[in-house]
Amino acid sequence: MTNEFLFQKIKEKKSFLCVGLDIDLEKIPKHLLKEEDPIFSFSKAIIDATHTYAVAYKPNLAFFEAYGIEGLKSFKKVSDYLHNRYPDHFTIADAKRGDIGNTAARYAKAYFENFGYDAITVAPYMGKDAVSPFLEYKNKRTILLVLTSNTSSKDFQYSKEDDLLLFEKILKYSQEWDNSKNLMYVVGATKTEFLKSIRKLVPNSFLLVPGVGAQGGSLRDVAAFGLNSQCGLIVNSSRGIIYASDNNDFDIAAAEKAKILQLEMKDYLKSAGII
Amino acid sequence: MTNEFLFQKIKEKKSFLCVGLDIDLEKIPKHLLKEEDPIFSFSKAIIDATHTYAVAYKPNLAFFEAYGIEGLKSFKKVSDYLHNRYPDHFTIADAKRGDIGNTAARYAKAYFENFGYDAITVAPYMGKDAVSPFLEYKNKRTILLVLTSNTSSKDFQYSKEDDLLLFEKILKYSQEWDNSKNLMYVVGATKTEFLKSIRKLVPNSFLLVPGVGAQGGSLRDVAAFGLNSQCGLIVNSSRGIIYASDNNDFDIAAAEKAKILQLEMKDYLKSAGII
Repeated sequence: MTNEFLFQKIKEKKSFLCVGLDIDLEKIPKHLLKEEDPIFSFSKAIIDATHTYAVAYKPNLAFFEAYGIEGLKSFKKVSDYLHNRYPDHFTIADAKRGDIGNTAARYAKAYFENFGYDAITVAPYMGKDAVSPFLEYKNKRTILLVLTSNTSSKDFQYSKEDDLLLFEKILKYSQEWDNSKNLMYVVGATKTEFLKSIRKLVPNSFLLVPGVGAQGGSLRDVAAFGLNSQCGLIVNSSRGIIYASDNNDFDIAAAEKAKILQLEMKDYLKSAGII
Repeated sequence: MTNEFLFQKIKEKKSFLCVGLDIDLEKIPKHLLKEEDPIFSFSKAIIDATHTYAVAYKPNLAFFEAYGIEGLKSFKKVSDYLHNRYPDHFTIADAKRGDIGNTAARYAKAYFENFGYDAITVAPYMGKDAVSPFLEYKNKRTILLVLTSNTSSKDFQYSKEDDLLLFEKILKYSQEWDNSKNLMYVVGATKTEFLKSIRKLVPNSFLLVPGVGAQGGSLRDVAAFGLNSQCGLIVNSSRGIIYASDNNDFDIAAAEKAKILQLEMKDYLKSAGII
């Protein structure tokens, strides 16, 4: 998927919402546990209920891997369902992979080819040659971790060298890499105080912003400092949407939560003159 | 597995060799492709042939994920075979995972509980709270990426703040975390010039050292600067051992390569007075 197509969808849907699929069998409605594949049944219901309000979906690999081979089979089913039923939605494998070149090439093959994702999240610690195998894929996006939403992000991401914090250095350097147009960046919604300086370094890039909802980030602040003329934002909510209710109406409740975020996003897109 | 047990095995076998399982169907002997599960058949043969010379095995997740669900089923079979047939070998899931706390807990559950590994490699970029869910497991080891063997490791790992390079800062800080006794560290064999300063920061920790063989690191230098009184080293070779031959004798050839490394290690252990 091109950035232009994604922007077109954002304008059509008046939304830059991504729904995160962090599926925890202890949190889904009990009646689904009787199904043959509860993870898939829950994911499918959430996707069907929210697809009108969302432009993107982001399954979180850890939650599938935690259930071993059965969980990974569910991941494959969810991935196939997303790509076959909703091919116009932007799909992100939230895998946070990162390894030396020949290994990185394998991860790229796994998520871009085998599981068919439009994008994957990638850890930057190992530098350029660990990211470039992902960037070589045309029309695929590599979403580099930059400034994460967790408390300990300050431990290393704020390391300062020559007046640049580490996450700023990663933004600056990575823009000079081959195929850097295929880069997007993860910036936590709890870190909006840095969005202005981030936008100076990467004015045109899409930012994937987790951390609204359960983690306490403000959508208003994210929009105020993060929007650019092509939107430039994908804001993710996982727990706040998918676990809105643990009753039979869980999908309706999820849709309502997604709609609330979408309507707020519509306001910000209008205020910014994007729609 | 405790560090004491691992050290006992190192002394018994006169070896600190880890065999890396980076299984590429294009590199394994052609006759194995007719088997029902070529990845498992190849891995099993390599493990059976080398177990006398190795104290550890390190399947690389990327290579299994690249083949989708079939590859992950092979990973499960290889993992079960290792843990059931060779329970005294130290097993490392080379997964390089790293995510916020509730997600990190899922990766820990996946590899420590579901797939039964003794250790997992973890990326440090997100800081303490992204690593602590792994460290909470007793008798499991969290192997933090510190100084990697690839050329681009210098991009960010050499970032300097207050006279500490980023990888040194990670070593120093992580030693103060709860359960830091469960930490080991990845240091590339191509970076032996830093081993002295690394040993000053973590005199007692085990280092997992990839990069001898195909990547050009020197085992002699690794041993000279990395050994401590409890050995403190696990040196990995993947391609140099497992692809020693692509003929019918591939397992014998792999065993020979492993034996050459083991004999060299025996000399270094003797010279250091460890055995």
